[in-house]
This record gives sequence, structure tokens and C-alpha cells, in this order.
Amino acid sequence: MARAAAGPEIERLIQLLARLPGLGPRSARRAALHLVKKKEQLLDPLAAALAETRDTILTCEVCGNIDTQSPCTLCRDATRDPSLICVVEEVGDLWALERAAVVNGRYHVLGGTLSPLDGVGPDDLNIPKLIERARGEEVTEVLLALNATVEGQSTAHYLTDQLADCNVSVSRLAQGVPIGGELDYLDEGTLAAAVKARKAMGG
Amino acid sequence: MARAAAGPEIERLIQLLARLPGLGPRSARRAALHLVKKKEQLLDPLAAALAETRDTILTCEVCGNIDTQSPCTLCRDATRDPSLICVVEEVGDLWALERAAVVNGRYHVLGGTLSPLDGVGPDDLNIPKLIERARGEEVTEVLLALNATVEGQSTAHYLTDQLADCNVSVSRLAQGVPIGGELDYLDEGTLAAAVKARKAMGG
Repeated sequence: MARAAAGPEIERLIQLLARLPGLGPRSARRAALHLVKKKEQLLDPLAAALAETRDTILTCEVCGNIDTQSPCTLCRDATRDPSLICVVEEVGDLWALERAAVVNGRYHVLGGTLSPLDGVGPDDLNIPKLIERARGEEVTEVLLALNATVEGQSTAHYLTDQLADCNVSVSRLAQGVPIGGELDYLDEGTLAAAVKARKAMGG
Repeated sequence: MARAAAGPEIERLIQLLARLPGLGPRSARRAALHLVKKKEQLLDPLAAALAETRDTILTCEVCGNIDTQSPCTLCRDATRDPSLICVVEEVGDLWALERAAVVNGRYHVLGGTLSPLDGVGPDDLNIPKLIERARGEEVTEVLLALNATVEGQSTAHYLTDQLADCNVSVSRLAQGVPIGGELDYLDEGTLAAAVKARKAMGG
């Protein structure tokens, strides 16, 4: 039985850090030590940043993004095209698309995918609000940027049905070989999709 | 140029999380999202634990361990053998030995190793205090549990010299094949040390 070398306060900090994705018990221990050693440079500002995040964070009532204001910065951005709504599963997906800076429209975060086996139905996701937004006058296209998983794709089909009478065009992301991808390392499903959706050279 | 999808508060949190060992920019982003999503279960308690650590953490004036009291829990523990001082480089090493529960004496944290090239001399480490403790009446053995690196071992030799007139026996950790280690994956230095220090079977 290992003995606790540190006081209960630090043990608690380690346990909480270990629950972050990407940190296990051992790296949480190293992270806690690092924090204690870099008290002024890291522990103090991180404690303050967490407290500030805790006190200021909001979920955008329009799109479901996370921000310190609602409607969020993206929904308020007048330079964005109001005719396009890009639907994503999670806020992390929205951030990924924003890093790539490829969507100049608005977003809509579902908060997951339909999963009857897990008891996740349409009412558990941010779907009614999406339908309502899609009926808005200025919206002409809904891009379903969902994960290329079974759950993501079946959710996309469900949404396509639901959006049928909203007078918008519904699109999805292209599927194929990722940029830089080597065929030898790709799964059969990706290769099949890439062959099926092949394009003319120079097209 | 990637755009910031989240507000400056979250971007700051991500930047600070990315400075923890074991987390890069991408995993820090995931960790921040996870924190925001698990507000009650994780963000709130972690913010509180960090604030408490910030406010209560102390360096033990005797041994250099980190605790919320000084002298620390280990130095106060009357069940520990006061005749043995185990010298380690960093607090993390102390924790590792405590997890293994193999040292039933007191500790002494040097705070690093001698490194003339980096300008780290004897006065920059917690060495004078060690000499003073080693001269204490009840101390009979100093175990130098330093890393098996060039810096650790040259520091061990320096300390052995310094402790020569302290009337204590000075020992070091055994070197050899780690438990569970496969010879094929071990470096030549370890194999050489293991052969040189070989023991009689059943001995």
C-alpha cells in the first residue's frame, strides 16, 4: 500500500487533474508538482483563469457555442454570412472548423448525436432550435458537418428529413482521402468512399 | 490564420493548461472544453483545489518536501527512523519512493543537481542544510537516491566528499536490470552495471 507523501489538498488536486482528458494518474502527479514549483508563473494564473471561466462562461442561446456572452461572438459577428448554418456535434468540432477558418457562416451545436441505444432521442439534442433557425428568412443552406461515424451519419439523415420543408438546401462534408493521407494506412471505408466520389483530373 | 472561436478568457485558460507537462496545445484545448462541459463535477472543484493549494502550500524548512505544514508530515512522523536520511533531487523523486513505501527514514530534497555548465553550484542546492542535518546525533546513514544520470552521479560524488567528516555511512541505490526489464531493450550502460554488480544465486 502506497503512502501519501503529500497532504490531502495536493492529493485532491492530483485526483482532479487526473480526470482531464490526456492526463493519467502519473502525469497528473507531475502536473501538480509542476504547478506547485511554478507557483507565481503558473499556479496563480491558472487558478485565476479557472475561477474566471467558472464565473463567466455561458452557452450561447442561439447556436450552443461556449462563450462569455450570449449570443456568442460568432453569432454577433456581422461580417459572417447569415444564409449558412453549419451544424456540428460538439463545441470542439466548431473550434476545429474555426481554426481551419473555412466556414464563414453561423454555427449550430447539436450537443451530441442520436443514439437510441443510449436513450438519446431528438428531444435530447438541440434540434428544435435548429429547425426554427432554418425556417428563418435569411437562411438558404444548412451544412451538416457531423462526424463520419455511424451515429453522425444517421443523425445527418434524420436532420435531412426534418429540414425537408424548411426551404433550405442541405449539404454534408465531402468524404475521401485526408490531405497528406497515405492509402496504405487508410481504412477500407475511406478508400471505398474516395473511389466512389472520384473526380475528373483538373475538374 | 486561425480565428479564435472562444472568448479571450477560454483562450487564456487553454494557453495555461498547455504549459502543464503532458498537455500540448491540442490536448489543452480538449481539456478546457471538458472542464467547461463538466462545470459542476470538474471545473468548480478544480478551481477550488488550485486556489486552496495556492493558499496553503509550503516548502518544509527541514527537508524541502512540499506540504501544507512545515515541518512536513514526513518530518513530523514519529514512527519513521530518524537515523536514515534519504537524499533525492526533486520532490517528485520523494513521492515516487513513498509510493513504493521502501524508505522508512527521513528525506532531504536537494532541489536539483550540480551543473557547472548551467551555473548551478553547491550554494544553489539545499546542501548546507543537509550537512547540518547529517551532523545531528541520531543520524547514522545518508542514502543518496539520486538519478542514475551523469549529473546525479557527479552530485552524489560531491556529496560523499562533503559528508566524509559527518560520522555517517553514505550509501547509494543499487544499479542493474529493472524488475520486469528485458535485456534486449536495455542500454549498454545498464547491462554493464548489472554484470559488474552480479550476485551469487541464492545470495
